Parts: sequence; C-alpha cells; structure tokens
Amino acid sequence: MLKTAIFPGSFDPFTIGHESVVRRALDIFDKIIISIGYNSQKKGFFSLENRKKMIGEIFKDEQKISVMSYDIMTVDFCKEQNAKYILRGLRTAQDFEYERAIAQMNLSLKGIETLFLLTLPEHSPISSSIIREILSYGGDVSKFISLKINIKNYIEK
Amino acid sequence: MLKTAIFPGSFDPFTIGHESVVRRALDIFDKIIISIGYNSQKKGFFSLENRKKMIGEIFKDEQKISVMSYDIMTVDFCKEQNAKYILRGLRTAQDFEYERAIAQMNLSLKGIETLFLLTLPEHSPISSSIIREILSYGGDVSKFISLKINIKNYIEK
Amino acid sequence: MLKTAIFPGSFDPFTIGHESVVRRALDIFDKIIISIGYNSQKKGFFSLENRKKMIGEIFKDEQKISVMSYDIMTVDFCKEQNAKYILRGLRTAQDFEYERAIAQMNLSLKGIETLFLLTLPEHSPISSSIIREILSYGGDVSKFISLKINIKNYIEK
Amino acid sequence: MLKTAIFPGSFDPFTIGHESVVRRALDIFDKIIISIGYNSQKKGFFSLENRKKMIGEIFKDEQKISVMSYDIMTVDFCKEQNAKYILRGLRTAQDFEYERAIAQMNLSLKGIETLFLLTLPEHSPISSSIIREILSYGGDVSKFISLKINIKNYIEK
Amino acid sequence: MLKTAIFPGSFDPFTIGHESVVRRALDIFDKIIISIGYNSQKKGFFSLENRKKMIGEIFKDEQKISVMSYDIMTVDFCKEQNAKYILRGLRTAQDFEYERAIAQMNLSLKGIETLFLLTLPEHSPISSSIIREILSYGGDVSKFISLKINIKNYIEK
Amino acid sequence: MLKTAIFPGSFDPFTIGHESVVRRALDIFDKIIISIGYNSQKKGFFSLENRKKMIGEIFKDEQKISVMSYDIMTVDFCKEQNAKYILRGLRTAQDFEYERAIAQMNLSLKGIETLFLLTLPEHSPISSSIIREILSYGGDVSKFISLKINIKNYIEK
Repeated sequence: MLKTAIFPGSFDPFTIGHESVVRRALDIFDKIIISIGYNSQKKGFFSLENRKKMIGEIFKDEQKISVMSYDIMTVDFCKEQNAKYILRGLRTAQDFEYERAIAQMNLSLKGIETLFLLTLPEHSPISSSIIREILSYGGDVSKFISLKINIKNYIEK
Repeated sequence: MLKTAIFPGSFDPFTIGHESVVRRALDIFDKIIISIGYNSQKKGFFSLENRKKMIGEIFKDEQKISVMSYDIMTVDFCKEQNAKYILRGLRTAQDFEYERAIAQMNLSLKGIETLFLLTLPEHSPISSSIIREILSYGGDVSKFISLKINIKNYIEK
Repeated sequence: MLKTAIFPGSFDPFTIGHESVVRRALDIFDKIIISIGYNSQKKGFFSLENRKKMIGEIFKDEQKISVMSYDIMTVDFCKEQNAKYILRGLRTAQDFEYERAIAQMNLSLKGIETLFLLTLPEHSPISSSIIREILSYGGDVSKFISLKINIKNYIEK
Repeated sequence: MLKTAIFPGSFDPFTIGHESVVRRALDIFDKIIISIGYNSQKKGFFSLENRKKMIGEIFKDEQKISVMSYDIMTVDFCKEQNAKYILRGLRTAQDFEYERAIAQMNLSLKGIETLFLLTLPEHSPISSSIIREILSYGGDVSKFISLKINIKNYIEK
Repeated sequence: MLKTAIFPGSFDPFTIGHESVVRRALDIFDKIIISIGYNSQKKGFFSLENRKKMIGEIFKDEQKISVMSYDIMTVDFCKEQNAKYILRGLRTAQDFEYERAIAQMNLSLKGIETLFLLTLPEHSPISSSIIREILSYGGDVSKFISLKINIKNYIEK
Repeated sequence: MLKTAIFPGSFDPFTIGHESVVRRALDIFDKIIISIGYNSQKKGFFSLENRKKMIGEIFKDEQKISVMSYDIMTVDFCKEQNAKYILRGLRTAQDFEYERAIAQMNLSLKGIETLFLLTLPEHSPISSSIIREILSYGGDVSKFISLKINIKNYIEK
C-alpha cells in the first residue's frame, strides 16, 4: 500500500520553511499531497487558485508531490485520499502546544497520525502571516519564498 | 533501500509511552532499531543487559524491531546502521525545546533527520525518571510498563 | 461562612474536561457556581439558554452546584455572589501564561484568589473551540461531552 | 553619532510597565522615540491623539524622549529616524516567542537590532488589553497607569 | 471530616514566596501540614532541624499549620496524614510543566489531588536555589525571607 | 561616564553564538568585559587559562573588549568593574525563564540591569554543553567555533 501523507495548511503564501519541510520528508513517503485548507467565507491574501499555481510551480519536477484544496475536516480529507499520515513542521514551543492538541484530536477522531519535522533554525522566524504583513506594506519578501517562483506574479492587482 | 530508524534513549526503564510511540511508527519504517545509549561510567537503575531483555521481550513478535546498545555519538551509530532517521516521542513544550536543539545539531552534523510523534495524552506524565523514583520507594509501577513483562523480574537484587 | 467558588468560562460548549475539574473540586468547596460569562455582542455557537440547560442537566444531582450567567467583570460577579475563589482548570503551559496574568490581576483588583486544578492527561487536547470546529463540519463530538446529555439536542436549527 | 532607539507599540493605553522599561533604558541611549504604530482602519480604545498626549505628559521632563506615530513598517520608520535599535520589554515566555520572530525578521530585513529589557516582576500581569477590558466594564485602572496622569481625562465621551 | 493539605517541598530555605502561598491558602483548608521531604543521603544547605525550626517560628501563631518531615513518597505521606490534597505554588511556565507531570502521577497513583495557587508577581524570581547561591557568596538574602525570622541564626557554623 | 557591560558566562567553550552576540552589542557600549565565572571546585572541559586565551584571540582586534575571570557574585563583579549592565543572549523560551529569574534578582539585589539580544536563528541550537558532548566523542565542532581560532589547540592533552 502506498504511504501517503497530507501536508495541510493555508499556505497564504507557501514559504521556504514549508518547502524545506516537504523536501526533507520526500524520502519517507510515497506520495505527499500539499493540501490547502480553505474556508469560502475567509478571503486569503493570495487567491486559492494562485496558491495552487505557486506550489505547483515550486514542485513541478517532483513526481511524488501533488497539490489539492479541501474545505472539509482535515481528517476526513485524509480518509478520502487514503492518507494515513499528516505531515507538519514545528518551529517553536508555542507552535508545539497548538499542534499537539490538533494532532491528538486527529488521532482520537479518526486514527490519523501526525509526523513532525522541525523547521531548519534559519527558517524559524518565517511565517505566512509575517510575510503577508510585509507585503501589505509593499516590502520585499523574496528571500522567504522559493527561488523557483516570483511571488509578485501571484499577487492580484 | 530499507527505511531504517533509530529510536534512541536510555530506557531506564522502557515505559508504555516508549512502547506506544514505537508501535505507532511501525508502518512508517521498514526497520526500527531501539537503541540504548549508555555511558560505561554512569550506572543505570536497570542494568544494560536487563534493559535489552525487557525491550526484546516486549517486541518479541515484531519482525521489524531490534534492540541494540551503543556508546558513541547517536548520529555515528545511525551511520553505522545505515539509518537515515531518528524517531522520537514528544510529550511537553519543555521536551520540545530540548529535543529541537539536539535534532537540529544532528541534522547539521551528519544529515540525520529526526521524526517526531506525540505521545498519547494519557502517557504524557510518564517518564523513566518518575518511574525510577517510585521504584526507589518500593512503589508499584506496573501500570506504566508494558503488560507483556513483569518489571520486578528485571530489578537486580 | 460558606466557601463559595465561581467556575467561570464561556462553556460554548461545556466539555468533559470542564466537568471533570468541577467534580474533582466538589469536596473543596461548599458551593460551586458555574458562571457563564457572556457578551451580548458576541453570539456563541450554542445559545446562552442552551448552555445553561446543558450544564444544569449534567449536574442536576449535585446539590452544591448551580449555574448562572453574568456580563460584568468576573471579580465583580464574585463579590455579588460572596465567592472568595475562582476555580480554573489548567491544561498546557500556554494556558498557564494566559491564566496567570488574569489571576494575578483578579487578586490585585479585588482580592479574589484563583485555585487551579490540572485537567486529566486524557482531557488535555479537548477545548470548546476544537469542538465547535468539529461541529461546524458536522463531525461527531459525543466523546468529548458528558455522557449525561445528548449535545445534538442543544444545537439550534 | 547619536544612539537612537525606537520604542514601538500601540500603547492603547501606555501602562506603568511601558513607562518602567523606557525609564530603565534612558541611560543606554541618547534618544528614545516612543513610536505609536497605528493602522487607520483599526480604531483604538484611546484615540491616537490622546495616546500621544498621555505619553507626552508622562515624559514631559525627559529631554531624551519624544513621541511620534507611524503607519509604515517599523523597520522603515527606524531608518527614517536614523534609529539603529528597537527597544522592547519582555514579560513572559509567550511574549518571548512572539517577539523573537519579529525581532529576527527585523534584523534580517533591514539590519535593525532589538534590545530587550525584562519588565519588573510586579508589572508582569499588566497589559494594555487587560486594562482596556477593565475600562470597558467601568473598572478602576489607576494603579496600572503612571501617577503623572489621570487616565479618565483621555477617554473620549 | 477535616480538610487537610500537605504543602511539600525541601524548603532549603523557606522563602517569602512559600510563606505567601501558605497564608493565602489558609482559609481553604482546616489544616495545612508543611512537609519537608528529605533524603538522608543528600545534605541540604540548612539542616533538617533548622528548616523545621525556621518554619515553626514563622507560623507559631497559626493554629492550622504544622511542620513535619518525611522520607517516603509524598502520596504515601498524604495517606498517613489523612490529607486528600497537596498544595503547590506555581511561578513560571517551566515550573508548570514539571509540576503537571508530578501532580498527574500523584492523582493516578493514589488519588491525591493537587491544588495550585500562583505566587505573587513580585515573588516570581525568588527560589530556594537562588537564595542558597547568594548565601554561598556571603550575600544578603533577608528581603527574600520572612520578617519573622533572622535567617543567619539558622546557618550552621 | 563610560557605558560598561559585563558579558558573563562559563564559556566552556566560547561559541559562535556568544561571539555574534558580543559583536552585535559592540556599538551599544563603550566597553564590554567578557567575564568568565568560575568555581574553583568545578573543573571545566577547557581550563580557565585556555578559555581566556581563546576569547582573547577571537577579539584581539577589538579595543572595546577585554576578558576577565571572577569567582564572586556576578553583581558584585559588576560593581567592582563599574559596569551598570549585564549583556546576555537569548535563544529559547526555556533560556528565557531561567534568565528572567536571574536578571530580576540581579536588579533587585544591586540595581544591575540586564540587556538581552537574541541569538541569530541559525545559532539557536548551539550550546557549550552540546559542543563539549561532541568533543567528548571526538567529533568535529569547528563549525560552531570562531573561524579565528583552532579549538584543538586549546584542549589539554
């Protein structure tokens, strides 16, 4: 049976921190589905369509990686995709406490296990929300985004 | 290539928290080596020999699991065993900060990745050191130890 | 003089974590008032009326427990009720830091002491906000709610 | 060259915790600009004008301290003011994790260093948000505000 | 039945932080036994005898408080004394994580509940170990010790 | 008056994390005394003499920096050196809680202020104790030590 993992998030936008975690997990799984959770009532900074394109572009040469979006419970999406695992990156102790509650609930609800990798030390201060804030002031975020894309192309006018 | 993980620790003694993490990780890896790190100058509560026996007994029906001991750097032991991964359980935010520094150093030193699973909520207060303390007062620790063994048989007289 | 404690919260909904803390504190106090703080401008997931009913049903056999709601400062509500104590459950280090600031302010403002019990390990991932999120997706939350009630009866159509 | 630091915040309102950090940092710098970051779309509890007046009144005898407001990125405001440093107070571990990410980004983006002082132990539970909450219930906050001002004079009717 | 609590610790020495927690808990219990846990193999800075005298002197006017020492498991000592509760003070998030594991084990082992009060903000940096360190350098610790005693009288020559 | 800061530690050994904090603080102070606290009863991995030499070599071109050792209380050493400030680097939330208690005591005891800089993200996993452990296994630590020195020259045979 294929070992499939979901890498869930809002990825608004997808950062080099996210990218690094996915690449470092590639050898563990047969398939990683980067899964954009969205809520039709909350508009993101980047459109769902552009987030998908961005991630697709970053990993276009990786056969094992696909990109999807979902608006159901993460564990239900795992079941739909036959994924037994959720993959998550951990940066800080504060992240950890939040992630722990979610992961323990996901295991309790549907038997889905969460595997954690640590972000690299140099990526620890990077978060999508800080990037959105810098962008909202017109600042340059290119060093926090994959070299494979130009983030300006994904911002709607 | 086999996906091999080291599950390192002093396991003095091996608790149901440890056991649960290993069992839940079984599907991820082809081989898990429970690896007892020891220091010939620090005597444990349980002898190295008895720790090995205890763990061997608990997992005697699991083909994928073996037990070894080592007295070199954990990353060097990984290299010797062709293990690309270290498996660790996380209980608390305090654990997390300690584990993060070690894991980031292990990646930086020898490219060994650490995968974390969370302990189950009901196992979070259990630690080898609390068990040793209860044992030192003659208390009963059987509910913190695998049902498959009788810990009293492993305490030296 | 009666030893009265307020157990304040929004209880949207009341979980088995809350229930366990109240039951374990019953012997300490003569009277525990489960006190639903509400803000007329924030609509909850469950109506205030249904939250009261739910809690009343759970503790209908406990003479020492009553349910009330309030929309003033918690310490002022304590004064009104002649309660010298606030009872709170603690789950995580993150909870702790938040609770500490509130409790130290309550002591400084009106001399009200806060007593903390720890939630049971198996209840640590349970929170009202996670339950509301599961409910918003139509998921089953019955294992996080008192066996004495059927939560579906309290959701408004 | 003058050693200038920005002390940024929303200061809604400015507390004795903020005041204490600024006074204790006075000898380190030649100039401290208390810098009210605001967002024209978020209305504060106190008007920007009144926040400036309040702080100006508190420090009217300190030649080294000035008060300004800004609505650009904090690091860009530092550059405009020739300030090489950001000054911040730290109260709790939770504060710390939040502040660390911001400070590391500010260093990475524009080379601005952040210096931290700890708040005094007795100030650790005091925050602008708790004060606003007390005020919203008509409570008395005078003990959390500088003796040099009467906060009631700054609340708009 | 009397509501009895154990306030356990090594109290080497007993600080104003300890004193404040005990006094603030006086109204909750009928009896508080300040219980010095000791290990005959670890010599303290203060002798067990002097620690008892110190605490006895501080609370000589409090009928509800007694001082004892014990060298068994804390929960077993609770059973011996018919104490259903352990009282503990909490200072920091780090304290919390340590205390949580102990308290959850005590509940699991013998059904003993632990009640936590927060130390006052101004007492949060005070610990017996820092006081011992200051004393080892001949420093003055009088402001961290009850006004009712002169700590110099308890240091052995 | 000269603005003098003490940068205290055991520096066994001095890491690139320490070096980076000192260099980044150079513009703030007129003089930084790297101050090796030692205890004649605890032998370090590196001799006190070699620690001094190592640090002296690293900063031999910096006029503002000197190296000293002391075996009294840090605040008393500050007084002797007319230093009003202690400089410290912060890595993690766990560091923070420990440092906070010490810093608040130092302020309370002798009015000495502590200024904190954050270590760079990439230095956050580096600590003297991890380096000593790697060295004890004969591992290579050169990437954690200043390029200006060869650490092998400082290890006693």
